Amino acid sequence: MKEKIERIQNVLQKYNIDSWIVFCHHSYDIHLKYLLEKWHSSPTLVNVPQEGTPRVISSVMETMMVNDEIYEVQSYKKGDELIELLKSEMNGFSKDSKIALNFVEEEEALRRQSYDIITSGTFKALTNFNHTLNYVSAKDIIFDIRAVKTKKEIENHKISSKLAEELMIEVVEPQIKPGMMEKELAAIIEFECNKRGGVAFEAIVGSGPNSAIPHHKSGGGKIEQNQVLLIDYGSTHNWANSDITHTYWIGSKPPEEVLRAYDAVDKAKEAAYTKIKAGVLGEEVEVAVRGVFDEFGYDHEKLFMHSTGHPIGIETHDIGYGIYRGTPIRPSKPLLENSVITVEPGLYFEGEFGVRLEDDCVVTKEGSIRLSNTPKEIVCL
Amino acid sequence: MKEKIERIQNVLQKYNIDSWIVFCHHSYDIHLKYLLEKWHSSPTLVNVPQEGTPRVISSVMETMMVNDEIYEVQSYKKGDELIELLKSEMNGFSKDSKIALNFVEEEEALRRQSYDIITSGTFKALTNFNHTLNYVSAKDIIFDIRAVKTKKEIENHKISSKLAEELMIEVVEPQIKPGMMEKELAAIIEFECNKRGGVAFEAIVGSGPNSAIPHHKSGGGKIEQNQVLLIDYGSTHNWANSDITHTYWIGSKPPEEVLRAYDAVDKAKEAAYTKIKAGVLGEEVEVAVRGVFDEFGYDHEKLFMHSTGHPIGIETHDIGYGIYRGTPIRPSKPLLENSVITVEPGLYFEGEFGVRLEDDCVVTKEGSIRLSNTPKEIVCL
Repeated sequence: MKEKIERIQNVLQKYNIDSWIVFCHHSYDIHLKYLLEKWHSSPTLVNVPQEGTPRVISSVMETMMVNDEIYEVQSYKKGDELIELLKSEMNGFSKDSKIALNFVEEEEALRRQSYDIITSGTFKALTNFNHTLNYVSAKDIIFDIRAVKTKKEIENHKISSKLAEELMIEVVEPQIKPGMMEKELAAIIEFECNKRGGVAFEAIVGSGPNSAIPHHKSGGGKIEQNQVLLIDYGSTHNWANSDITHTYWIGSKPPEEVLRAYDAVDKAKEAAYTKIKAGVLGEEVEVAVRGVFDEFGYDHEKLFMHSTGHPIGIETHDIGYGIYRGTPIRPSKPLLENSVITVEPGLYFEGEFGVRLEDDCVVTKEGSIRLSNTPKEIVCL
Repeated sequence: MKEKIERIQNVLQKYNIDSWIVFCHHSYDIHLKYLLEKWHSSPTLVNVPQEGTPRVISSVMETMMVNDEIYEVQSYKKGDELIELLKSEMNGFSKDSKIALNFVEEEEALRRQSYDIITSGTFKALTNFNHTLNYVSAKDIIFDIRAVKTKKEIENHKISSKLAEELMIEVVEPQIKPGMMEKELAAIIEFECNKRGGVAFEAIVGSGPNSAIPHHKSGGGKIEQNQVLLIDYGSTHNWANSDITHTYWIGSKPPEEVLRAYDAVDKAKEAAYTKIKAGVLGEEVEVAVRGVFDEFGYDHEKLFMHSTGHPIGIETHDIGYGIYRGTPIRPSKPLLENSVITVEPGLYFEGEFGVRLEDDCVVTKEGSIRLSNTPKEIVCL
């Protein structure tokens, strides 16, 4: 935690920002979890100054959860006390101080959604406490601390992906049976993730035609014999998420169209890995993936409607540069050394079945380090 | 779902609002889930007009999840398309239309946090698309559809509390053993909730001194012999959350101080139930609870630092009127008929142990219907 604060303080110095303030009610701002390493469910403020001790305003119900070797903590019991503490915190800065908050201006809000966090009313209320300060977007800070991972964070990603992969192969696969509800299987997967550190996101379990819905939420559907089964899941280890997708065949003999789609998706994934390297444009990777689909004769504009990969970290869709085709408004960017990204080509045949294979990797100077390896041939269960 | 839309349209009529727009990236606005009955993780807009068919703008990856018998759906593939669709949606209203968005003004943001949802940048971006509209806070709509439950919603709450109570007594209790990690037990509880419909919130499992931290997050702590074990958990059934807290003794002979605290908390809970009734001020109930602690000689200002109960619904801390002592700024309100609330007195002895007993109930004209019943005497495991 001390290292984390030092890293942030260095970034604040780089951008000449006096303090970074994260404040939210409930716990929807992931940076609270990043900073405090605990979920706080009452309104909580963290103030990391460029120098000196970071400060926390916390509900008396959660004060004991704050690491007081790192933070100077103030507690409130009722809402009125919270407001007084916020007011005095915002008035503790000297005039014209540059204070970063987790917002972006409207032109960017719909394009850089991950930085558009603070709520409308809270932003106005906080900034209204003190009009002499210079409020700036925290987007550069957030980018710097999240897009490129530290050694320790990469270690955590390695463990997180490994744990996820092992639990699927060793514990979950043997339990998959036709007749099981999607929801039931999702519960088993999340249970195994929880036992090992936590769930990164609600597992997607799609059987048969549901496998063709990329963001399908596991529901009352049943796992059926002679159908595709798609499972997209992730565990978390020390706040490093993993995100892996397996595609199975329930039965002994997958039909030719499923085998062929699986093969195409696997080859597309391999094509991605031949391109991934620090400094390479994400777009180059995306084009390679789509090139494979072209070779197979699949209309990928229709059948592969998402992009190939996204950064992953404390959030499953993390800050940084992923693999996608650029547009004038959102140009493709060179992949960053020591970023962690997913590689997840897919083909979705609406009403029939879908295949997606998703692995995580670390982008390096030489290429990549694979953190998981979905099978090259479809596994029959 | 049809009923839900009709209910909203009636509310819109009541307040003379032309449309209610819910828009967010990621899925942090619970009303998206309420309206679509599915989690969408891509940016999604729902527009419920006072009359006629409600509309959805959804990512092509999630369009298949939208009920197209209820909603008129438009899909986007890339961010640029989303922005075009948003622009045209916001320009589809006639001049001066009254459009409700999920925000509150700054004076209220820190006090009525549950209504302060839309992010700062998104609010500006959406309203900037069309300056001829009259944007109003959706707080009245949200209050009306959430504070008082429909018959069907109350049925769901009954089932949700029952399921939660049964899984704890029948399935979880027999598995609790000294030496188990808090985290492991939390995983088991969430697994059982998931199998029955879903987890309402991350389970709190606090062993020994951790039981004295009201919002403790289950961590690496171990369940130990001759210690208190506090479990706060909830399941969800058709979007109706339950929220129950049990306090156990691990061992055969709880010490006198634990027995006495448990007895006080139980009696405090019973005192609450003698008062709860539609129309009664929440404060009256809170005073009755604290009166019991006074009789026992406990300094409740120090040992009971939260309030007695909160509304529960699609969120565990829902919209409506709970049980708390009023302040000039946040006066106590009369409990609402057909609201669902928790009753959860507690006593927390820092560094030693805590006792909390939490049940859910429906507020009625005559009193209340109890949805769960934590034991009157401490259960030894």
